Amino acid sequence: MPAAPLRLGLAGLGTVGIGVVKIVQAEAELIAARAGRPVAITAVSARDRSRNRDADLSGYAWETDPVALARRGDVDVFVEVMGGHEGAAKAATEAALAAGKHVVTANKALLAHHGQSLAEAAEAAGLSLRFEAAVAGGIPVIKALTEGLAGNRMKRVMGVMNGTCNYILTRMQSAGLPYDQVFEEARSLGYLEADPNLDVGGIDAGHKLSLLAAIAFGTRVAFDAVELEGIGNVSIDDIRLAEDMGYRIKLLGVAQMTGRGLEQRMTPCLVPADSPLGQLQGGTNMVVLEGDSVGQIVLRGPGAGMGPTASAVMGDVIDLARGFRVPTFGIPAAQLVPAQPARAATPAPYYLRMTLVDKPGALAKIATCLGDAGVSIDQMRQYGHEGANAPVLIVTHKAAPDDLAHAMARFAATGVLTGAPVAIRIEEV
Amino acid sequence: MPAAPLRLGLAGLGTVGIGVVKIVQAEAELIAARAGRPVAITAVSARDRSRNRDADLSGYAWETDPVALARRGDVDVFVEVMGGHEGAAKAATEAALAAGKHVVTANKALLAHHGQSLAEAAEAAGLSLRFEAAVAGGIPVIKALTEGLAGNRMKRVMGVMNGTCNYILTRMQSAGLPYDQVFEEARSLGYLEADPNLDVGGIDAGHKLSLLAAIAFGTRVAFDAVELEGIGNVSIDDIRLAEDMGYRIKLLGVAQMTGRGLEQRMTPCLVPADSPLGQLQGGTNMVVLEGDSVGQIVLRGPGAGMGPTASAVMGDVIDLARGFRVPTFGIPAAQLVPAQPARAATPAPYYLRMTLVDKPGALAKIATCLGDAGVSIDQMRQYGHEGANAPVLIVTHKAAPDDLAHAMARFAATGVLTGAPVAIRIEEV
Repeated sequence: MPAAPLRLGLAGLGTVGIGVVKIVQAEAELIAARAGRPVAITAVSARDRSRNRDADLSGYAWETDPVALARRGDVDVFVEVMGGHEGAAKAATEAALAAGKHVVTANKALLAHHGQSLAEAAEAAGLSLRFEAAVAGGIPVIKALTEGLAGNRMKRVMGVMNGTCNYILTRMQSAGLPYDQVFEEARSLGYLEADPNLDVGGIDAGHKLSLLAAIAFGTRVAFDAVELEGIGNVSIDDIRLAEDMGYRIKLLGVAQMTGRGLEQRMTPCLVPADSPLGQLQGGTNMVVLEGDSVGQIVLRGPGAGMGPTASAVMGDVIDLARGFRVPTFGIPAAQLVPAQPARAATPAPYYLRMTLVDKPGALAKIATCLGDAGVSIDQMRQYGHEGANAPVLIVTHKAAPDDLAHAMARFAATGVLTGAPVAIRIEEV
Repeated sequence: MPAAPLRLGLAGLGTVGIGVVKIVQAEAELIAARAGRPVAITAVSARDRSRNRDADLSGYAWETDPVALARRGDVDVFVEVMGGHEGAAKAATEAALAAGKHVVTANKALLAHHGQSLAEAAEAAGLSLRFEAAVAGGIPVIKALTEGLAGNRMKRVMGVMNGTCNYILTRMQSAGLPYDQVFEEARSLGYLEADPNLDVGGIDAGHKLSLLAAIAFGTRVAFDAVELEGIGNVSIDDIRLAEDMGYRIKLLGVAQMTGRGLEQRMTPCLVPADSPLGQLQGGTNMVVLEGDSVGQIVLRGPGAGMGPTASAVMGDVIDLARGFRVPTFGIPAAQLVPAQPARAATPAPYYLRMTLVDKPGALAKIATCLGDAGVSIDQMRQYGHEGANAPVLIVTHKAAPDDLAHAMARFAATGVLTGAPVAIRIEEV
């Protein structure tokens, strides 16, 4: 007797949803061989039925309401690729779990805000809630962290996980163009979310980081505790000068457990130009996982798009068809502990850029501020004068963020600075 | 009632075995939370009980014979980290499956030679045979390929999977030293297998490639069909000259399904110096997985060593504790089809180095041989004369390996070559 098919209810027929339809239709035989049973779509849901979609949906029941789809008797797994962290996506996901359906979702915002309650609901009912497609697109990073590296105490998790930001930063660098101009380019190419701040403000990448941190450290998702800084203030000057010193600027997420609690930050950082992160171009994503036994694992791949995201959804679906059951965040949701948020205090070298008035002793005054705060200088470069002002670059030795802040608070009183100084963390990768 | 522990019988107490002991002892609580049940070692086996090992083994039963260990009633999972593809490792693995135990192994040679029969035996008995630690050390690549990317029809799989070879090649490049000298260095550092040909002959890496190919393409493991060429003939001249043209030399495995059958080769190749593969230094491994939906995924990490290999073993163990069951090669062994081995015929650019006698028309004769065989020249460099002979480098446009071989077969008759020409494939990555 052939095994019964696993029946999917697919909510959302945008790019990702249609990608899932295409894989299920084109590779039915291959998937059945791998999953040990057929995988079939029985019903779909989207707002507008009349819209022309590049796929044959005639074999599927249609629901206008995703909640109704989630409750259908002929659906085993509710696949949520609608997006949005409130409203229909949340209601339908909750309805699916209440109706005894497993859930596969690509919705990072939903999980960053409601992951704990959804995971608890799923586990109380003996169901799986899976989200490989929500983080780093086609890279199977949730699986690597939750399963492959499960024998490790994780030490640090890092990632460049918003392709649009990385596109903007690499385009600024390669073309020598200012942020505003590349931002407009990205908008006209359709690379930006309707609310661009989700991308360039670091929110989308912060969502993803908070999900990785929960798995890595066994803590409840704490998106609100992510120190967020977008790329809007990254200047072409800093990109150029950083390159000159052997660094590149990335919107880099870092989560690490410290004696003071969990540090999570998603901020522009400098990384060595010749490191895997420094080499990352355009929309590609990279995640770095560091465990006590394994050392450093680096995963690189497409962070978005129809094929990669649908591939991640199908990985979860095939796992469910094979009967894999694993808690959403790697350990039972009830055992996740509240994250003690710690302000970023891990020392690091810093890149400083400032413009000094061209007076004798100006640089000495800045060096004194740094030295008095316990911040020592590794490299210093003074560039050719622009009028009466001298641009100065400093790379510090490792310094605590608070010490650096103290030093910089004293810069103004020296009277030798023109404009505000820029400080960017150099992450050791 | 707490869940019953998963009981391991650990055969082999070398570096990897002791690494497993350390993780199981140090992280019992973490592993139990992640696995949903405790994981315990109940018995161990090694040849020499008296040897001093850096771990407390007093709580475990001792078996001198791994076959006896495999059959113990208090063992659920037989963990084989002894090595060797015949003899004790094979006998004990077969005994474990016959006795109804799951098997986790780090033994690439065993699986490359006997994977089909062992997988069939496991699956006939409803058991799992898993081997994450056998390929690319700590990188969870078997999991990524078998599970995470299961929604993809794989197109190509590539990898640098022998850390010793990559150490030798990168050391030759960075220090400008010849092969023989770096080989001796590696031997004195303990980097080489007792039979060094397993490393530098490409055999170990070929084993790994054959396992990845079986999963990627649903074919029976066909190690004997891997086109193998080691690194013993890679000269420091070629490393220098390739660098000069923007390339690095790697022992690169490539498996791809073609219309003619399955190509598998493990040979020295040129890759762009600024590509992820080109950037790979020392003992680190890298695997590139290309699927029709996901595009290209690159995984990078430590390819050997106590911690990384034990991490991979524990990933498999925790999967088993969680109840995951997946066929050894991703689809049932009985459904794997025999690989139709295809000689490597996928066209590629080639790097050619030769020394010409310093006579008018010499280069034209070589160019004619290439042109007549349908091989066109992309770049050519003639270096300063050494005595009467002129070293010449040629990079061809994409050429079929057979066409290139035809051209090179005609070089000798021209009478303008001194010594044998060198040809190395340039893999597009």
